[in-house]
Amino acid sequence: MRIVELPEILAALDEDAALAAVEAAFRRLHAFEAQVTAVGHLSFADPPGDCHIKSAYMTGDEIFVVKVATGFYRNPTLGLPSSNGFVVVMSAKTGEVLGMLRDAGRLTDQRTAMAGAIAGRAICRSGSSTLGVVGTGTQARLQARLIARYLNLKTVLVWGRNPQAATALAAEIGGTAVSLRELCDKADLIVTTTPATEPLLTSDMIAAGKRIVAVGADAPGKRELDPAILARARVVVDSCAQCVDHGEAGWAVRAGLLDQASLIELGALLTAPIAFAADEIVVADLTGVAVQDVAIAKSVWSRLA
Amino acid sequence: MRIVELPEILAALDEDAALAAVEAAFRRLHAFEAQVTAVGHLSFADPPGDCHIKSAYMTGDEIFVVKVATGFYRNPTLGLPSSNGFVVVMSAKTGEVLGMLRDAGRLTDQRTAMAGAIAGRAICRSGSSTLGVVGTGTQARLQARLIARYLNLKTVLVWGRNPQAATALAAEIGGTAVSLRELCDKADLIVTTTPATEPLLTSDMIAAGKRIVAVGADAPGKRELDPAILARARVVVDSCAQCVDHGEAGWAVRAGLLDQASLIELGALLTAPIAFAADEIVVADLTGVAVQDVAIAKSVWSRLA
Repeated sequence: MRIVELPEILAALDEDAALAAVEAAFRRLHAFEAQVTAVGHLSFADPPGDCHIKSAYMTGDEIFVVKVATGFYRNPTLGLPSSNGFVVVMSAKTGEVLGMLRDAGRLTDQRTAMAGAIAGRAICRSGSSTLGVVGTGTQARLQARLIARYLNLKTVLVWGRNPQAATALAAEIGGTAVSLRELCDKADLIVTTTPATEPLLTSDMIAAGKRIVAVGADAPGKRELDPAILARARVVVDSCAQCVDHGEAGWAVRAGLLDQASLIELGALLTAPIAFAADEIVVADLTGVAVQDVAIAKSVWSRLA
Repeated sequence: MRIVELPEILAALDEDAALAAVEAAFRRLHAFEAQVTAVGHLSFADPPGDCHIKSAYMTGDEIFVVKVATGFYRNPTLGLPSSNGFVVVMSAKTGEVLGMLRDAGRLTDQRTAMAGAIAGRAICRSGSSTLGVVGTGTQARLQARLIARYLNLKTVLVWGRNPQAATALAAEIGGTAVSLRELCDKADLIVTTTPATEPLLTSDMIAAGKRIVAVGADAPGKRELDPAILARARVVVDSCAQCVDHGEAGWAVRAGLLDQASLIELGALLTAPIAFAADEIVVADLTGVAVQDVAIAKSVWSRLA
């Protein structure tokens, strides 16, 4: 078993190659060319924390992966990073453990941002120029940079509960900290990146034609969007099964506001793009699918010296 | 992260301590003192193989575990063992990866046999003397030894599809190879340990009063018992959720032969023993629960030098 530490992982990570691999993985997921296990969620109360376990196998591959990622948000008070975890690379031919990528959640962070960029590009109106970033954490930072680059959006607006954090992030990425309402009014594409458990964006904030990528709701209990927004929107999901179980879509389906049959899987949208009308609201609900972990881990694994 | 190889794991494994820990874990599972993630199953076609991913956290513990076990049954033709896998020990306080027990499936084998012994003792008639072992693989060998010792059964009968393997196992464990019908007739307690996907034991083979521990059905598609046996039996399950999803109980429930509400969880039976009538058939359906992995891993982890 080869153990690969973070510096070596990051050195082997080619962002464009990995992004293309993640996009291909969504297409293959939709084409039933992947096995994805049910997401394992564990939650911890004292101190608060959570653990996600995801695993997938793309048909015909030589390898498959098991990914474990934890978040313990009080760790910084102990001088420890919040995120921990690893990706194990295993042989799909013998079941042997080939390697362990000790990524401490970094590959998860990256592939999550990549899915945001991929979904953002698939739902964005042409001619869009302004990105609104809701949140100020790791995903806010990564999504802001990657989406702006990938979609060539020139203006980035930032809102966070903590105004100082929003100002700092805005300064860091060359954006502007604004109110949430101003962000929703001005942004063509809004990406929500918080661990909220109550809706931050209400339906009255979202005008016709807005496009939203929601990445915060990745476990039961989490939500950033008023289900009434989804009731007015075309809803794209990274995985029907996961989003109905624990994504934004699930809240709206359970509230009777959204028909599960109307969900558009991201892989389908990437395979057969939809020309959304300019006044349609489109929401991409991203829970994070293990095929993304496979794609980024394979991309890294293949580039290790 | 401490990496612990198999010899060190086996040296730290105290069978009696681990068995007591597994029994306590079943009680805690039933008392809602555990979080158990949905079992992740992956299956591979060419060559055939499978992977199970299990994870659990016992409320209040300092650690939790993620277990991955694979079986690729043609590996021996490559000079490789069929079983691979590992148990990762993680901090329930910080999410950090503390250690990796490179057990290659051995802890899974052991905790599975321990559950068989625990369930066998809980359902066996007093005065039982004869154990019947169906199958000739690793679990057959482990269950035969552990159940016979734990329940003090003096006579062990063995049946396998391959008569030579049955004769060899019988010789190894001081038992006798017999026909399947003779085994069912003479054994007080029958343990089934095969990867069968069609019933091996038919209802006509099973007389009143027989006790059966079924450990083979641990994934969708597997089964060893005619559902008609379960229709006649009191049915004990290691986990209601798992057994209805992919255990023997699931086949009987889906066939309309068994009421899910009648299932007795093993942890309940251990907490409040039932005096089964002498003529009752009792089946223990064991799919393998991640709390067993936690229990045995904790037991080993606490004993490492």
